[in-house]
Amino acid sequence: MKIINLDHISSKPLIPEVKQAMIDAINNDYANPSSQHKKGEQAADALAKARESVAGLLHAKTPKEIVFTSGGTESVNHAIKGVAWANAEKGKHIITTNIEHNSVIRSCKRLKSQGFTITSVSVDDKGRVDPADIAKAITDDTILVSVMHANNETGTLQPIEEIAKITREKKIIFHTDAVDSVGVMPFDVQKMGADLVSFAANTFYGPTGIGGLYIRRGTMIWPLLDGGVQEASKRAGTENLLGIIGMGVAADQARQHMNSRLVHLEKLKSKLITELPNHIDEYIINTPLDYSLPNLVSVSVKYIEGESVMLMLDDEDIAVSTRSACATGSLRASHVLMSIGLDHADAQGTLVICYGVDNTEEDITKFLGALQNIVVTLRDISPLYVKKH
Amino acid sequence: MKIINLDHISSKPLIPEVKQAMIDAINNDYANPSSQHKKGEQAADALAKARESVAGLLHAKTPKEIVFTSGGTESVNHAIKGVAWANAEKGKHIITTNIEHNSVIRSCKRLKSQGFTITSVSVDDKGRVDPADIAKAITDDTILVSVMHANNETGTLQPIEEIAKITREKKIIFHTDAVDSVGVMPFDVQKMGADLVSFAANTFYGPTGIGGLYIRRGTMIWPLLDGGVQEASKRAGTENLLGIIGMGVAADQARQHMNSRLVHLEKLKSKLITELPNHIDEYIINTPLDYSLPNLVSVSVKYIEGESVMLMLDDEDIAVSTRSACATGSLRASHVLMSIGLDHADAQGTLVICYGVDNTEEDITKFLGALQNIVVTLRDISPLYVKKH
Repeated sequence: MKIINLDHISSKPLIPEVKQAMIDAINNDYANPSSQHKKGEQAADALAKARESVAGLLHAKTPKEIVFTSGGTESVNHAIKGVAWANAEKGKHIITTNIEHNSVIRSCKRLKSQGFTITSVSVDDKGRVDPADIAKAITDDTILVSVMHANNETGTLQPIEEIAKITREKKIIFHTDAVDSVGVMPFDVQKMGADLVSFAANTFYGPTGIGGLYIRRGTMIWPLLDGGVQEASKRAGTENLLGIIGMGVAADQARQHMNSRLVHLEKLKSKLITELPNHIDEYIINTPLDYSLPNLVSVSVKYIEGESVMLMLDDEDIAVSTRSACATGSLRASHVLMSIGLDHADAQGTLVICYGVDNTEEDITKFLGALQNIVVTLRDISPLYVKKH
Repeated sequence: MKIINLDHISSKPLIPEVKQAMIDAINNDYANPSSQHKKGEQAADALAKARESVAGLLHAKTPKEIVFTSGGTESVNHAIKGVAWANAEKGKHIITTNIEHNSVIRSCKRLKSQGFTITSVSVDDKGRVDPADIAKAITDDTILVSVMHANNETGTLQPIEEIAKITREKKIIFHTDAVDSVGVMPFDVQKMGADLVSFAANTFYGPTGIGGLYIRRGTMIWPLLDGGVQEASKRAGTENLLGIIGMGVAADQARQHMNSRLVHLEKLKSKLITELPNHIDEYIINTPLDYSLPNLVSVSVKYIEGESVMLMLDDEDIAVSTRSACATGSLRASHVLMSIGLDHADAQGTLVICYGVDNTEEDITKFLGALQNIVVTLRDISPLYVKKH
């Protein structure tokens, strides 16, 4: 089925270069990179090459600072729990924000049950944290600050560089969950200054189930997975070499085509924002346009349910999401949208439109046309809409 | 390069059915199984199908008892740490054995640093634990027993059923690391009685970097990866759907061809054991032939270094290993071989020969011929050999 995929936040398609590399890898019958015979060495070479590609994407000083994981969630769990456990004798206080991904929130909650204390800093109505609030929250007991780079529901970018300056001065470890930004926009770990950066391959058109954690040299952290000596003893377990090879190629492609991709994404964003008022009224743009991801727009359409819109768009072969796919199964309104001050009804009317290199301006046009009709239909039967107008 | 792969313990090749299924999946552009539009549902269906296949391989009561992980190491870490943390208020004592995989040993060591106590039970000279020793080690504080099913260096099988009877009576959770047996030989969780079973896809010709944890319904365990609600909230993170699809097909194939594969493996084992004395003398078979994996033989060749044999075989395009690939980088003698009473010199002369469905009797013949020449060459220059003879 030919679907217009405007749900890139949940899943991005593999680009042809990644597909080909993975198919070649499947046919190549790689051995275990830890094996010391020549088939093992060939696998170790492929692993090293992918690590260099990924290190290049993040501008890491050395490929040794890249640890491959099973995806963004493992990276985040590794970063937060690994730092907490390794530094528990120094302190047990962790600072984070109200708009993090569930992997951060629930890792912190887990640590809370083990005696750690968590301060969750508020954000403004655009979903942005004030670095001064982070500074104020720091105590002698603080061992870790974790602030996401780009929010997965609103696209809001956080002032990572400013926060890094504060944590560096205070000698506190700083983790940023950059799962939705690394590979989409330039991310230079030297410039950003974070000690730990979580990222995932699918964000830049690599496979799902593979990601990485950048660990700045000298950062005190425990492994999450103990066992063999893979990943320089930082993450045990036989490697997902197929996924890693796919991620390496995806990283090379992201680096090489970063500028042209950004131009394309900004064009789609601009079209969407500019033309939206020609199709619907009474909506809120939750994405702060001057500091947000280039590939995401969050819109709360008043007096209707986002879920209904999503399903009706689906009938027209257009995929969007109402919120993070990871939160499926939860009926509560998004904590991110509540944190930026949306009321419950508006939060329920939210659509996350996330497009990619494979989308065209025509896709946006089709989406806007379909949305217009659906909004009219739904508002016609909405008691809220009727009541107010 | 055409290599005779007798190092299946480190890595097994993908069988054609798995390759094809994974290539099809790559070309199918699966969405995120958590997405609620139709592309998401298609992905969720593929995920459910694979889970059924894997549940079938283990004879789980319901597919819900299968949690997909990034491989054997994650499964083991999840089982051991997840049970320890979830049951810490009940007790802090864990029982394991001296011959476990590093993922078990180091997970336990990690927990020790968090206040848990570990009892490691000895094994006999065949590498077998006596269930009575497990029973004796149990205290009021014991929350978990972890005993591997098949050892990855000697192939020794442990009396899992007997141990499960003891733990069940005492209401203690029982985990078995069955990473090297599930999919190679029949493994029925109902008959075996363990509450938690770790396994990995590559063991049965699926991809690396994907595995599973069987969690018997009602077992008190925390997730290792916190975040989204994937895997029924037991393991967060967007799924490695390509790997899972490969694992599902590999599980179906393993079930379907289990008997014919066993016949083939036993034939190769028998040939290897029977013909070995025609080629070399002064060696020890570390594998107890009446209770071991069908696909592995461990031989300690006296007066020489296993590493040299491995490298010389590699020159002749034959891959074997000297010990677990996960232990590469460690210069110490194998803790497993030390535990069964080998002296240091004999342990260093050990080869692990692990063959698979893709090997032929001719492969064994070629290996034996090559080994014979190499042993002569190495003993000629061995000071140990000269001195004694």
